[in-house]
Amino acid sequence: MHDIGILGGTGAQGRGLAARLARAGYSVIVGSRNLARAEAAAAALFSVADRRIRGGTNEEAASAPTVVLAVPFAAARETLARYRPHFQHGALLVDVTVPVAFKNGRPYLVEVPEGSAAEHVRHHAPAGVGVAAAFKVIPASLLADVTAPLDCDDLVCADSEDSRARILSLVGAITGLRPVDAGSLETCRTIERMTVLAIELNRRYRVPHTRFRVLGL
Amino acid sequence: MHDIGILGGTGAQGRGLAARLARAGYSVIVGSRNLARAEAAAAALFSVADRRIRGGTNEEAASAPTVVLAVPFAAARETLARYRPHFQHGALLVDVTVPVAFKNGRPYLVEVPEGSAAEHVRHHAPAGVGVAAAFKVIPASLLADVTAPLDCDDLVCADSEDSRARILSLVGAITGLRPVDAGSLETCRTIERMTVLAIELNRRYRVPHTRFRVLGL
Repeated sequence: MHDIGILGGTGAQGRGLAARLARAGYSVIVGSRNLARAEAAAAALFSVADRRIRGGTNEEAASAPTVVLAVPFAAARETLARYRPHFQHGALLVDVTVPVAFKNGRPYLVEVPEGSAAEHVRHHAPAGVGVAAAFKVIPASLLADVTAPLDCDDLVCADSEDSRARILSLVGAITGLRPVDAGSLETCRTIERMTVLAIELNRRYRVPHTRFRVLGL
Repeated sequence: MHDIGILGGTGAQGRGLAARLARAGYSVIVGSRNLARAEAAAAALFSVADRRIRGGTNEEAASAPTVVLAVPFAAARETLARYRPHFQHGALLVDVTVPVAFKNGRPYLVEVPEGSAAEHVRHHAPAGVGVAAAFKVIPASLLADVTAPLDCDDLVCADSEDSRARILSLVGAITGLRPVDAGSLETCRTIERMTVLAIELNRRYRVPHTRFRVLGL
C-alpha cells in the first residue's frame, strides 16, 4: 500500500507533487486513466525520488489513504463519481483544483455554485472521506521544476480537525513550504481568487512564479 | 493647499496614514465632521510629522488633490454624497475601505452589489475624479503604531493609467511598504477577501498584524 495516490498525476502539478512528496519520505502512486502514461511519468521522476514513486491506474490511486485530486477543475465531479467505489473509508481527499479560465489571455475565476472548488469537491466527495484543500496557491510549473526551491507559504483548509491535522502534516513535510491554517473549506473562496491574482501578476510583471508569504504569524 | 486630505481621518487607519504620509514628505489634512476632534488628532501626530499635518473639516479634506476615504465602508456612499461639491476636478480618490463585519467574533465579507467596496466607491465617486484602492491589506492598528515597521506589500488597484501611476507613487513613498500593481478595481473582490482572511488568521494564530508579501516579482 502506497501512502498517497494522485488522481490525474501526470500533469505538471501532479508530477511536481509526486516528486516533492516522495522526497519528503512518502510513497506515491502517480495515477492516470492511461497506465502506460502513468508509468512513463513515474519513471521520469525516479531519479529525484529514490523509487518511492510508481505509476498506476486512477483506481489504484483512489484507494490510497491520502488521495490528491489533480485533475482540471472541470473534470473534478466526473472523476470523483467514476472512482468513488475505490476510496477507503477514512481516507483524506486533497483538493488542489482552481476554477480558473482565460479570456484574451487574462485569467478569471469561474463561478462555482457551491462557492469554491473545494466546497464543490466536498459536495461530491465519497461518504466517509475527509476533505482538505492545499497547494492551490503554489504555481504548478514551479512544483514541477523539482529542483527549484518553493520558498513560500501554502494556505490550507479542511472540513474537520482530523483532516486539518493531516493536511498540515503533509504540507509541512515538503521542503520550502510552510503550511498556514486558513480554516474551513469556505476560505477557498478567497484562496482560489488569490491563485487567479497570482496568475494575473505573472502576466502583469512578466514573471513565472508569483506566490505568497503571510507575514506576522 | 495641502497634498492629501483624509475623510474620516481621526480613526486608527486615518491617523496612521496621516503620520506615515507626512513622514514621506506630503502635507496632510486630517479631516473630520468635528473640527475640534480633527485638530486634536492632528496635534497628537505633530511630533512624528514635522507639522506637515493639520486638522480640518471634511469639506477641506475633500478639496485636496488626493483624497483618502477612511470612513467605515457602511458610511462610504453617504460621505461621498455629502462632500461631492468640494472635490476638485482631476482629484484622486483613494478608497481604503473593506466591507467586513463580525459574527460570534469571526470576520466575514459583506456582499456589495457592485462586487467590491472599491467598485462601490467608483460607482458613487464624483464625476471627473479618478479612483484607486490601496492600504486595504495593511492592518489599521499597525498603521496607527507609527514607529512600527510595516515591512510588507500593498496590493493597489486603479481605474485608469493616470490613477495607477499616482497611487503607485503615493504608496511607494511610504517607508516599509512596497506597492504591487494588482490591476483594475475589480481585483478588489480578491483583495478585500484577503483582508478578511488576514483578520481570521490574527484570530486563529493569536497574533495582531497578519499581512502579505508577494514573492517572485
